[in-house]
Amino acid sequence: MNRAEAVSYLLRDQPKDPKRDEGVYFAPANIALCKYWGKRNSELNLPYNSSLSISLQQYGAKTMIRPHADRFNRIRLNGQVVDNETSFAQKITAYLALFNMCSVTNYSVDTEINIPVGAGLASSACGFAALAGALGRLYDWELPKSTLSILGRLGSGSASRSFWHGFVEWQAGESADGMDSFGIPLTHLWPELRIGLLIFNTLAKPVSSREAMALTVATSPFYSLWPAKQNADLVRIKEAIATHNFNQLAETAEHNALTMHALMLTATPPILYSLPETLQGMKEVWHCRQRGVPVYFTQDAGPNLKLLFLAKDLPAVLASFPSLQVIAPFEGRDVA
Amino acid sequence: MNRAEAVSYLLRDQPKDPKRDEGVYFAPANIALCKYWGKRNSELNLPYNSSLSISLQQYGAKTMIRPHADRFNRIRLNGQVVDNETSFAQKITAYLALFNMCSVTNYSVDTEINIPVGAGLASSACGFAALAGALGRLYDWELPKSTLSILGRLGSGSASRSFWHGFVEWQAGESADGMDSFGIPLTHLWPELRIGLLIFNTLAKPVSSREAMALTVATSPFYSLWPAKQNADLVRIKEAIATHNFNQLAETAEHNALTMHALMLTATPPILYSLPETLQGMKEVWHCRQRGVPVYFTQDAGPNLKLLFLAKDLPAVLASFPSLQVIAPFEGRDVA
Repeated sequence: MNRAEAVSYLLRDQPKDPKRDEGVYFAPANIALCKYWGKRNSELNLPYNSSLSISLQQYGAKTMIRPHADRFNRIRLNGQVVDNETSFAQKITAYLALFNMCSVTNYSVDTEINIPVGAGLASSACGFAALAGALGRLYDWELPKSTLSILGRLGSGSASRSFWHGFVEWQAGESADGMDSFGIPLTHLWPELRIGLLIFNTLAKPVSSREAMALTVATSPFYSLWPAKQNADLVRIKEAIATHNFNQLAETAEHNALTMHALMLTATPPILYSLPETLQGMKEVWHCRQRGVPVYFTQDAGPNLKLLFLAKDLPAVLASFPSLQVIAPFEGRDVA
Repeated sequence: MNRAEAVSYLLRDQPKDPKRDEGVYFAPANIALCKYWGKRNSELNLPYNSSLSISLQQYGAKTMIRPHADRFNRIRLNGQVVDNETSFAQKITAYLALFNMCSVTNYSVDTEINIPVGAGLASSACGFAALAGALGRLYDWELPKSTLSILGRLGSGSASRSFWHGFVEWQAGESADGMDSFGIPLTHLWPELRIGLLIFNTLAKPVSSREAMALTVATSPFYSLWPAKQNADLVRIKEAIATHNFNQLAETAEHNALTMHALMLTATPPILYSLPETLQGMKEVWHCRQRGVPVYFTQDAGPNLKLLFLAKDLPAVLASFPSLQVIAPFEGRDVA
């Protein structure tokens, strides 16, 4: 099954024509505490392992999509038209082409993303989730969110987790067609939890996550042991969430991230997303812990760090990281 | 068998009293191209795997040892008396106590080391090799160098490789008493080979190699795959030396070092010897290669990098690393 066949199958009973002038959808960015790294099927973005994330509240992508009577899609990002030759536009165009089963052939897509794009801050996750969600609104699909999550996943694996706030597990699934590989929100709230964005560099990454994952799986001498490590960490993280054991949650998440980056270092050629500032930041986090402040980090396919801490420690954390952008993932939420 | 029993056994037929007023010995520092990381026996410093190094010519330790009629040893490093309470002095005292089978109970030890001590520049390797060698001269032991190598190993594992110039393999051995675990020099010369020391920090490391190894073996989820990786790299490196294939040698050595540091990142707690400057240096090395200059790095239990390149590329390498300390390991040598 390829992507287009998966889309056809999922939308087999849905309206084929737009039901509105436009569809609008917001999807939060998400930060994996237990990482997704390595695809068992790169066409369908099916992972070797389940992963688990926390969504970033108001940070994410808001997309408005409209039919567009022209030979080309018109894609705008944060108000600027994106050249159709860029890989950004081509990925969106290829994705929209999967939905070409109706009278509409091209679209106007306006996306506002309030985090840096392509810098390991989950912009493609929230971007594809918002796009799938906006299409759903435009066509008035009546689909469970798990199906939207699959549709998002076909654009970017981690988009499967960007359809909910709070903690979300992306269950890897076992079937070859990926119909059991989608996000599942956890019902646990944790109002005291804080995420801090420590941004060193907002330039697009030198190697895409897609390429980096493929290279890691193909060449790391250690990749064969990653799935077992992942499964163990996922159990520990879910247990920590259920019992509000912050140290267990954050320690496991930090180790999980370090292990993912260690794997990349052992690829041929090696992949190193960290900058000198990243290392300095890690060391500062460890110094904080030595001084008794329970703060941890996680890192994705980019140089920036995301800090994990509790509300009570905000002043101490800000003292060490004055420029930190702080997010309260559960603020004002009764349910995820 | 403990260390003292190993020493007694090795010196069973040797003179028990000094034959001279003093013994003097120089041992070069050595940089592993295929690393030693993890002990199958930490009392006897027996490794899980064979390793392979290149010696640093004139850089190393020169030790003069004399009987000392006092209650304590008197240890001097680069002309300065070292307090007997320091861990540096205590390691040497414990080592000398292994040789307490004669009329001499204490020693005066003068060591000159012309590389930074304790900063991952193999100072303990050359230090213990020079100490064992100097004892041999003082007592006039008639021992093959392989036995001296075992005696050095009992002080510091990698000292086993510091009894020769050029390339040296430390054969891991299989026996429980370590009598087959010693250095073996390779006869290959490679006059064009250059080593560059890129020194960022000469402070002693925050975690000793001994502790770091033990932590890695005990907690890294990937350590079980390290021996196979090591064996494969050793074969590739020996093949590269035999055929003077510089890229194969240096690429394998760089990957081997990155893999060792990746393993450490996955320990609990994580071990990170790199500084921000280390990362900057790695990236600069990779930029050089992208520009067509074949230069590679290796890194030991410290933040400094050791560059590998050929004599013809010295001007290009110096243009990128003006402060590089360059070593010609085979200069003026007919045999290792």
